[in-house]
Amino acid sequence: MITIYGFGRVPDLVVGLTRDLRVLWAAEELGLPYQVHALDFETDLRTDAYKEKSDFGQVPVIDDGGFVLAESGAILLYLAEKAGAITAADVRRRYEITRWCLAALSTLEPPMTVLNLLMISRSPDTEMKTRLTQWVEMRLEAIDERLGEHAYIIDETFTVADVLVVTMLRMLGGLGIVEKFANVRAYLARCEQRPAWQKVLDAYEDRLHAKRGAGRRTIPERLAH
Amino acid sequence: MITIYGFGRVPDLVVGLTRDLRVLWAAEELGLPYQVHALDFETDLRTDAYKEKSDFGQVPVIDDGGFVLAESGAILLYLAEKAGAITAADVRRRYEITRWCLAALSTLEPPMTVLNLLMISRSPDTEMKTRLTQWVEMRLEAIDERLGEHAYIIDETFTVADVLVVTMLRMLGGLGIVEKFANVRAYLARCEQRPAWQKVLDAYEDRLHAKRGAGRRTIPERLAH
Repeated sequence: MITIYGFGRVPDLVVGLTRDLRVLWAAEELGLPYQVHALDFETDLRTDAYKEKSDFGQVPVIDDGGFVLAESGAILLYLAEKAGAITAADVRRRYEITRWCLAALSTLEPPMTVLNLLMISRSPDTEMKTRLTQWVEMRLEAIDERLGEHAYIIDETFTVADVLVVTMLRMLGGLGIVEKFANVRAYLARCEQRPAWQKVLDAYEDRLHAKRGAGRRTIPERLAH
Repeated sequence: MITIYGFGRVPDLVVGLTRDLRVLWAAEELGLPYQVHALDFETDLRTDAYKEKSDFGQVPVIDDGGFVLAESGAILLYLAEKAGAITAADVRRRYEITRWCLAALSTLEPPMTVLNLLMISRSPDTEMKTRLTQWVEMRLEAIDERLGEHAYIIDETFTVADVLVVTMLRMLGGLGIVEKFANVRAYLARCEQRPAWQKVLDAYEDRLHAKRGAGRRTIPERLAH
């Protein structure tokens, strides 16, 4: 049984956007049995016991029979391999999935995260907001082209790389950016409708004692509350 | 023979900080034979031929006998496995290295990149600069603790994860941040002195027709020029 260290309490503003959801979704899609160890963002992450698991005091972390692994991207690849969705012998497929996990984390996520940070903090730097929006749109344009050819980011099969790409795209909801790209918009809807995601998000909202739907809110909706 | 798509021309401001250096350094450390295909940042990245290799028109990309792979983190892991520095059978070691490559790319790099972006663009948002500096320092504190116990980021062996951590730390040169952490400072110096890095950086400066030392400048030194 894999233990997934996830959140039990976070600020309302980030309900449904935390990184543990990536791991929970992947485990659910892959059919791996898991249990959630719920942490409070304010107290539990700073303990010495938790720093033994995560040098940076971050969520998520997994413990698989004593093997502790941090960083969501590494965890997703590990889980996919454990479940047999990628095999050690199929080097090219493994690195194709690794490549798209990394594209999500290091090519898509940084500008999206900072754009969110500027929106949430109501930064006065409108020039930076404009530049970041253009940067994000350039990325989505490339993805939109791919998604015109395939149902998922690599081909016709949903993989852990899609889990990561979709969690990035979810950050942009309501900002009028995803809406400009028809293939991206359809892909996001297609992935969010997957039963594994709906099940994980419902259980997460229950665990965090959040109202049903809190994790589905867009950034503007969150800021308006 | 592996072909590494790297830069042949970039703006002076980023000489020595481009992502192809990560791959070149790793290939050199791993003793893998390679050739560099040099690209001009302004013209070559936007061609359809290059977009076949990199959806986002990014550098680096490698071509290993027809297997084209993008994203520096994925490439480094692939090269380490090809050279036998990590083996498909040793799952835990492989994911420990994967974890630290991802920590460099998705936990260290984003705040460092944005801090650099704000410095270079001379953004007026000083509050954001202060917050990002604190964010970066929190990360370095965790690494400093680790580096008090080990010579390298995982243990006593230099791995491709160190290549990534060091390329992130190099972005902070001269900002007075690394200087606060004795173990990090010593680690950075220890890694930058490695013959493979020196060889790669010299060849890079030659290829870009940059003055010797241009790639070793700190951000404040670049801005002063």
